[in-house]
Amino acid sequence: MQLDPKTWFTEVCQEGGLAFSLAIKEKLHEETTPYQHIEIYQTEAFGRLMVIDGFIMLSERDNFFYHEMMAHSALFTHPHPRRVLIIGGGDCGTLREVLKHDRVKEVRQVEIDERVTRLAEKYFPELCESNDDPRAHFHFGDGLRFVAEAPANSVDVIIIDSTDPIGPAEGLFQAPFYSDCRRLLGDKGVLVHQSESPLIHLDLLNKMRAEMKKGGFPQVRTLTYPQCVYPSGWWSATLAGDSLSSFREQEAAAKTFSTRYYNVDIHRASLAVPEFLR
Amino acid sequence: MQLDPKTWFTEVCQEGGLAFSLAIKEKLHEETTPYQHIEIYQTEAFGRLMVIDGFIMLSERDNFFYHEMMAHSALFTHPHPRRVLIIGGGDCGTLREVLKHDRVKEVRQVEIDERVTRLAEKYFPELCESNDDPRAHFHFGDGLRFVAEAPANSVDVIIIDSTDPIGPAEGLFQAPFYSDCRRLLGDKGVLVHQSESPLIHLDLLNKMRAEMKKGGFPQVRTLTYPQCVYPSGWWSATLAGDSLSSFREQEAAAKTFSTRYYNVDIHRASLAVPEFLR
Repeated sequence: MQLDPKTWFTEVCQEGGLAFSLAIKEKLHEETTPYQHIEIYQTEAFGRLMVIDGFIMLSERDNFFYHEMMAHSALFTHPHPRRVLIIGGGDCGTLREVLKHDRVKEVRQVEIDERVTRLAEKYFPELCESNDDPRAHFHFGDGLRFVAEAPANSVDVIIIDSTDPIGPAEGLFQAPFYSDCRRLLGDKGVLVHQSESPLIHLDLLNKMRAEMKKGGFPQVRTLTYPQCVYPSGWWSATLAGDSLSSFREQEAAAKTFSTRYYNVDIHRASLAVPEFLR
Repeated sequence: MQLDPKTWFTEVCQEGGLAFSLAIKEKLHEETTPYQHIEIYQTEAFGRLMVIDGFIMLSERDNFFYHEMMAHSALFTHPHPRRVLIIGGGDCGTLREVLKHDRVKEVRQVEIDERVTRLAEKYFPELCESNDDPRAHFHFGDGLRFVAEAPANSVDVIIIDSTDPIGPAEGLFQAPFYSDCRRLLGDKGVLVHQSESPLIHLDLLNKMRAEMKKGGFPQVRTLTYPQCVYPSGWWSATLAGDSLSSFREQEAAAKTFSTRYYNVDIHRASLAVPEFLR
């Protein structure tokens, strides 16, 4: 069976020996920014789709898994998250989830490519519905530099919502960057970073956990969740901190905002470690 | 990007508007049986692959998720599983997992197409390594008829390891069949049936749960797990019984056999219900 490239978008995952395709109705937009090539499609069954450099970033239909797990797992792990820093996250889906927390007083988002955010505002308006929240501050620039220059103990939670560790995001997966994050967070902070597929990218995941420890985080915990449009359909995020044992379970159970995947049971479940990862 | 069908096998999931492809080295075998068309491939990164009527049945690399979750979730939920019936399961991967349980004294497997088992023996020998176990009994025939004719209270656990509810397996997803299963199991038994993707096939999953209840099972619980080669990469199985609350947790924690995905934490985690499924 061969798919017609006029009606299918296909992403090949070379290292996994697999490919994933979505049926498309039309290409809505395409541009090359100083940083990357961005495409927006209307799909048949997954709503709108954003693709960067040939890799699927998100679909309208299933982005809630990723955004909810990145935001709520970290925020409910910190005892009192007031100041949040998002590195990357230009589509604003993570930001929207973070702003659902009343405890949060300030969110800084450092996205290198302003065009990602501008296109998200146009094509994924539901993800950007909280962008006018006065607690949200947008910085368009290099996350590595921002973190290197920011003062110590200035942030409670850092969410690294980055692309894969190839190209511009590579430095975000390395100990010097994590060490800067540790300085910003102090000893009470919590960091979370998307950490690829446990099935396809296990070496990378293990390396990343080691880099986090080298960067000064004594505890790291990986959580997993479904993510249909990413290679293997199974994705992970890794939490790092001095102590990750303070899940505010009662508050999570009593949350007054809505989610589509995340809840207390899912939070706990996501931390279960499959036998082959032990 | 268009994939060369000489070096890629592609399965289209029309109802999901998506497709999944695996890079292949060669086609090892192909035949048409009285029931279906079977292909065996050597893939680049997923070991050997079995395809039936164009749909991926299993890969050497990731079948452990499915087989372990089908077998161990049901067996550790029954208080004392001695007699197990597998409907379908011709590749023998579920059977191998079931036979790891010392409590099990007898397993009957009713697969409609003997060629599936013969090909599994040849191309997936690791799945068939327990086929000579004296507790294993193979019946090649119609599962619907077998269950209709079998005596009441003759089985402790029924595992329905079937293809999708289209074509020959359709009757396996309906109340009359579940009602026959309930008769075989009596009021202590546990049934488990693969129940498709919670993301792509939610209507089907809900219908199946309703059919199980109509068939006489007061309790149904759906568990989820990753399954890279099935549509969306996220799959489910649904347990049914009169009481599903007896997870033998201590025994599962002390199990002496090895698994690659399943463990006590994963068992509990698999039962967490995502917000959108509530």
